[in-house]
Amino acid sequence: MKKLINKPEDVLVESLRGVAAAHPELSVDLDTHVITRATPKEQGKVAVVSGGGSGHEPLHGGFVGVGMLDAAVAGEIFTSPTPDRVQAATKAVDRGAGVLHIVKNYTGDVLNFEMAAELAEMDGIEVGTVVVDDDVAVQDSLYTAGRRGVGLTVLLEKIVGAAAEEGQDLAAVVALAEKVNAQGRSMGMALTSCTVPAAGKPTFDLPDDQMEIGIGIHGEPGRHREPLAPASDIARQLVEPILADLDLTGPAIVMLNGMGATPQIELYLMYAEVAALLEKAGVQIARNLVGNYITSLDMAGCSVTVLKADDEILRLWDAPVITPGLRWGA
Amino acid sequence: MKKLINKPEDVLVESLRGVAAAHPELSVDLDTHVITRATPKEQGKVAVVSGGGSGHEPLHGGFVGVGMLDAAVAGEIFTSPTPDRVQAATKAVDRGAGVLHIVKNYTGDVLNFEMAAELAEMDGIEVGTVVVDDDVAVQDSLYTAGRRGVGLTVLLEKIVGAAAEEGQDLAAVVALAEKVNAQGRSMGMALTSCTVPAAGKPTFDLPDDQMEIGIGIHGEPGRHREPLAPASDIARQLVEPILADLDLTGPAIVMLNGMGATPQIELYLMYAEVAALLEKAGVQIARNLVGNYITSLDMAGCSVTVLKADDEILRLWDAPVITPGLRWGA
Repeated sequence: MKKLINKPEDVLVESLRGVAAAHPELSVDLDTHVITRATPKEQGKVAVVSGGGSGHEPLHGGFVGVGMLDAAVAGEIFTSPTPDRVQAATKAVDRGAGVLHIVKNYTGDVLNFEMAAELAEMDGIEVGTVVVDDDVAVQDSLYTAGRRGVGLTVLLEKIVGAAAEEGQDLAAVVALAEKVNAQGRSMGMALTSCTVPAAGKPTFDLPDDQMEIGIGIHGEPGRHREPLAPASDIARQLVEPILADLDLTGPAIVMLNGMGATPQIELYLMYAEVAALLEKAGVQIARNLVGNYITSLDMAGCSVTVLKADDEILRLWDAPVITPGLRWGA
Repeated sequence: MKKLINKPEDVLVESLRGVAAAHPELSVDLDTHVITRATPKEQGKVAVVSGGGSGHEPLHGGFVGVGMLDAAVAGEIFTSPTPDRVQAATKAVDRGAGVLHIVKNYTGDVLNFEMAAELAEMDGIEVGTVVVDDDVAVQDSLYTAGRRGVGLTVLLEKIVGAAAEEGQDLAAVVALAEKVNAQGRSMGMALTSCTVPAAGKPTFDLPDDQMEIGIGIHGEPGRHREPLAPASDIARQLVEPILADLDLTGPAIVMLNGMGATPQIELYLMYAEVAALLEKAGVQIARNLVGNYITSLDMAGCSVTVLKADDEILRLWDAPVITPGLRWGA
């Protein structure tokens, strides 16, 4: 295992220490692994909380800030945070207008956020929840029942974060989150496995001449393995299942996401392939992201996310955002 | 070789096609591999041009935009762009107030930019040049005489780009560039080799239990190899040579840069180590960057850059910048 770490069991807290040192605009609790804005938003606005296992950086901690999340709860690597920590984060950021939980559809996350919501409601905090399940690759998997939540989470956190920031109420924010989840789809692939520090060896074996299509962000199995193929063929295998699943013609936001170890020169090359295929199919790419946004430790590979957009979604997308992972307009 | 590419010989132009598709605010010439702003800066301001071999993305093309570069010239992977293309870029962005060339100290780049400057001057364009040579690791190397130009280039392009944007004249911009170069130092290390697509195999062999300290951004040799060590030890081996080379006490801008295949969770962990060592030595970190800014294809590893800062440098650092690779304040 070749990693820039000290002891495997200290990776999360030592990385959070770096986040704290690098970003004075964030507050990082090294005991609970909760990241919040150093300056909370105004009283009377909905707060937005997300979280899940670590190893997907910048998701979620890197999306805390003005216009996006109020708090992120970082579990151990690929492990859901416990309900009490999600509850603590919820309580910490509530500004009297309720809190939205953004949960990726993995069994542990769904259960723990559900329990946290119940605990928070006992504290008198109104909680709304959206469960993101955008991955068209597989139905049911190692970590989840139903579709997995992957890349769309990034776009949803941005759009819903903007709605909360401008003062929309909890019902409106929840409805928007459900709309975004219904209108977005993702699909990923891996050239290599990832290596969880505590395991010390790759999660799975993928021979030097093979790739895996439909991989999950924890290295859980995808649809199938096949020999390495050109980028144009990979792009087709990612785009076609997305388009087959939902009518995405018209304006859209598209993300070409790196899995952690794939350099930008390759991500841009893949984006050119993906964009050409989407546009040929009638998708009008109104906005895009190309880079590492939801990763799987040191996995090499990429994923594609397409979100059907309307004027309202684009307006919220363009609203100012100031986070370590996404920043514009301010 | 596991990469998201089609044919190795098409990687650069196909990646540039992705840059063009993703960034309508840039103009990408797919014949000359020159990236410019779609909307040029006002007449009467100094223009800033950089470039060099590709494979270091986001450097340089990802730093074209308001507040930073006017043009970037992308050579083939790890290969200097030819003088005629640098000349064409210089001519394209000249707004009548002269052009600054930012050149990393590699023999090919220095020669080609020198020739391009002569050609541009024959066209009546005044050219100033700064050669960045911040790498304390080695004196002379496979690609260069003297010290190599590495991470400081990112900081210099931002600071000098801001000075040009606010209307400082060519003499002032050149003097600032030289000051920044004199006040900054870098040092890098690798956990793995990179693989140049055309070569199809790793540039060098680095056993599974070894790392290389003082590596260059083309995989050229560093100071020495040794067994894998904890992050705290690696941090010390990067910071100590920097501090031994220059008095960097007082305010500074610090960059913890990823080499391309190292995930953010590790970069933040390394930043915590590096920041603690620097602060103990009297460096006051006023600003920082943690992420992939000057990479070496799919190399795993990191580098540290420290730039001694004063009020003027910090003011220019904080000025608005709108590029794919760095963005804030607008």
